[in-house]
Amino acid sequence: MSKPRLYRGMRDFLPHQAIARERVLDTIKEVFKLWGYVPIETPAIELLDTLLGKYGGEADKLIYRLDHPDQLGLRYDLTVPLARFFAQHRHELPKPFRRYQIQSVWRAERAQKQKGRFREFVQCDVDIVGSDSPLADAEILAITIETLTALGFSDFKVLLNHRKILFGLVRQAGFSENEELSVLRSVDKWDKVGLDGVVEELTGKGFERANVEKLISILNTDDDGRSLLEVFASSEDESISYGARNLLKILDILSMMGDYQRYIEFTPRMARGLDYYTGAIFETVLESLPNMGSITGGGRFDDLIGMFVGERIPACGTTVGLDRILAAMEELGLMPKAKTQAVVMVALFSEEYTSAAIKLAQEFRKANIPAEMFIEPKKLGKQFEYANKWGIPYVALVGEDEAKSGHCVIKDMSTGEQFKLKPEEAVKFIKNRLTEGESDKVGC
Amino acid sequence: MSKPRLYRGMRDFLPHQAIARERVLDTIKEVFKLWGYVPIETPAIELLDTLLGKYGGEADKLIYRLDHPDQLGLRYDLTVPLARFFAQHRHELPKPFRRYQIQSVWRAERAQKQKGRFREFVQCDVDIVGSDSPLADAEILAITIETLTALGFSDFKVLLNHRKILFGLVRQAGFSENEELSVLRSVDKWDKVGLDGVVEELTGKGFERANVEKLISILNTDDDGRSLLEVFASSEDESISYGARNLLKILDILSMMGDYQRYIEFTPRMARGLDYYTGAIFETVLESLPNMGSITGGGRFDDLIGMFVGERIPACGTTVGLDRILAAMEELGLMPKAKTQAVVMVALFSEEYTSAAIKLAQEFRKANIPAEMFIEPKKLGKQFEYANKWGIPYVALVGEDEAKSGHCVIKDMSTGEQFKLKPEEAVKFIKNRLTEGESDKVGC
Repeated sequence: MSKPRLYRGMRDFLPHQAIARERVLDTIKEVFKLWGYVPIETPAIELLDTLLGKYGGEADKLIYRLDHPDQLGLRYDLTVPLARFFAQHRHELPKPFRRYQIQSVWRAERAQKQKGRFREFVQCDVDIVGSDSPLADAEILAITIETLTALGFSDFKVLLNHRKILFGLVRQAGFSENEELSVLRSVDKWDKVGLDGVVEELTGKGFERANVEKLISILNTDDDGRSLLEVFASSEDESISYGARNLLKILDILSMMGDYQRYIEFTPRMARGLDYYTGAIFETVLESLPNMGSITGGGRFDDLIGMFVGERIPACGTTVGLDRILAAMEELGLMPKAKTQAVVMVALFSEEYTSAAIKLAQEFRKANIPAEMFIEPKKLGKQFEYANKWGIPYVALVGEDEAKSGHCVIKDMSTGEQFKLKPEEAVKFIKNRLTEGESDKVGC
Repeated sequence: MSKPRLYRGMRDFLPHQAIARERVLDTIKEVFKLWGYVPIETPAIELLDTLLGKYGGEADKLIYRLDHPDQLGLRYDLTVPLARFFAQHRHELPKPFRRYQIQSVWRAERAQKQKGRFREFVQCDVDIVGSDSPLADAEILAITIETLTALGFSDFKVLLNHRKILFGLVRQAGFSENEELSVLRSVDKWDKVGLDGVVEELTGKGFERANVEKLISILNTDDDGRSLLEVFASSEDESISYGARNLLKILDILSMMGDYQRYIEFTPRMARGLDYYTGAIFETVLESLPNMGSITGGGRFDDLIGMFVGERIPACGTTVGLDRILAAMEELGLMPKAKTQAVVMVALFSEEYTSAAIKLAQEFRKANIPAEMFIEPKKLGKQFEYANKWGIPYVALVGEDEAKSGHCVIKDMSTGEQFKLKPEEAVKFIKNRLTEGESDKVGC
């Protein structure tokens, strides 16, 4: 006998969880589609050569490798696969290429340190490939905000920064160019380990304490975002002024798109952890759940696709982390709740009335009403109990009397009311109830 | 530089393919829901102990293993994970438990022998756990037929057989009980390698030629299915008569459910390849694509869950193979065709009219009309060409004149007609066109 268990960090999703996941994904996809994005899919298994050397830091060690002579690994994110995909198929794709991709990724993380962090999780990525325009960055920001709003979130902040500003500030603090990425990987941990943690990690890496402290004091600003951005825009450092002007342009376009700016906060200490970012970077945090970490994260990565193509192809996008989103919705009470998808349970009065019950169930299905049949002729009390327990709103039944007169009984499980109806009337009755319910529905 | 390429047997899905996949999956899910089934998800990575020793034959060698001290593998199907899942969570699940699961599986097959066969592919499984009733088997058969019909298939046959009939016939031909499964694994290849191929494989395995020939002659019947089944029902062999009576009951219930029997064909040589089947077995073939192999396959597996629980838990279900289905739809011209999901492309007349174009795009999105913005102010001819190439049905534009008078131009790309409208009129115009289109829509 095999013991039924899972490898640590892996999860099953029970029906009520899987139903909620499907609904949340449907909402996310709807927003992506509304902005004209198209789906793609890539395989879970990629050649290691595709995956390695793209992320920087410890990431390569977190890639699951297969025990296989062909040097294979499971994808670590959806951005490197997108770069590989685009390089391979670019002559068959529109320019710019707006794509979304919703698939699982795998990371051999040591343990479940944070809520909503697992070794297998679903990312929802949305990217524009092939455009330098700040319109692209603004569009990704607007989509991020629209997605979160559609899911019912309101108290979120999209932290905005720019890699070119960060690189400029890091060098102003006295670091050399080839130290930049290592410094930023430590700064990225600020919200997890705190300011002192970052200082400790940086000095631990052997950097001079004076430089570290200078950098931290620059980044640790309480200034109002916009005015600091204007100061940076006129900086003498070309990298800093370029980055700040780029962000100001993005914000201008965003205000043409709608009332999005109120969610955005320029945040100099926000660095993003992966090496491939080159321009604007962004991540979303929830003010009411500060320990959750970021629920979306992305930015511009103008050099990554070039690693596969040999010429620079600019790109920009974001990841909506499904599992963090669901964990947050759960905590905030935003989660859609349903244990089942059946609207009617057709009870089985006795073996003799099997055929009548089957035919009634089919009437509902023909009218597009999800119907489940109770499969054994158990005591009716048990059958009603089942419908109650699994939240099926109506029970339909054909007993002796009904069979004779060509009727059925519909019981509304929330009120206990019963109605004796002909099958076609029963279908109409439930249809009407569903339409009424539809108009009350809020959120996703 | 990394060369952009994939491991053999793995595939990317371009937008037009991914859009078709999403639509086909939505149709399949709708049918599953209509019958009251609920979704679950399990992780891609399972402990090897869960996966090994369940499938029989060569299957264990086809499981991808991870290079990891914890003895991990990628799932090979969705049935063994269901068994593990049910064993682990059964006290939180309804009884019987009707679930669907749509996820990828991985098999280290030697090569792409058959159309629609790959090393990573999506299975759509639908199962009932916890019931012995022939109602369960009939329901799975009805769902199979409803699913294929909803996708537009009409010339399919659901081959029906019973493991207990096969076991009886194998023993009548002179084989011993512990040879049964090995014999059936060879018989399963009948439609791929032909009658002679099966004889060759069985004698190659060391079985006596006389027994092999006897078995083949029994199985190679051209008899009309139903009457043979009635003969088997009164067989003196208990196993054969039990199986035949069980199938007759399933067929009776199926005819109560609707006009499904015409798709069913009792087929004694159909054996299924996996060891875990114990009762009714079924698979679907397309008459117009005989080389495609089966596009659905399943049956009753009453002992599998017991391998995790320690007590017998009957179950029955089927797999709809998404990739085979799509390959078949492609060949039969049933494939939904769309290169994009945007309904309107908002052109960018010049840099100066960026804000007007952005606002117009937002009007469409607010009205739930998918709209894509052209991101660079290229020549209008190029922009129209783009919409044409990617099949976007309408282009919207705000030029100098329109901006002054508060209008926009809508161009119907299929007829070339242009309309000068206020933004709110443009939204209504497209909405109306979509509603008209909706009523013309056929299939999925």
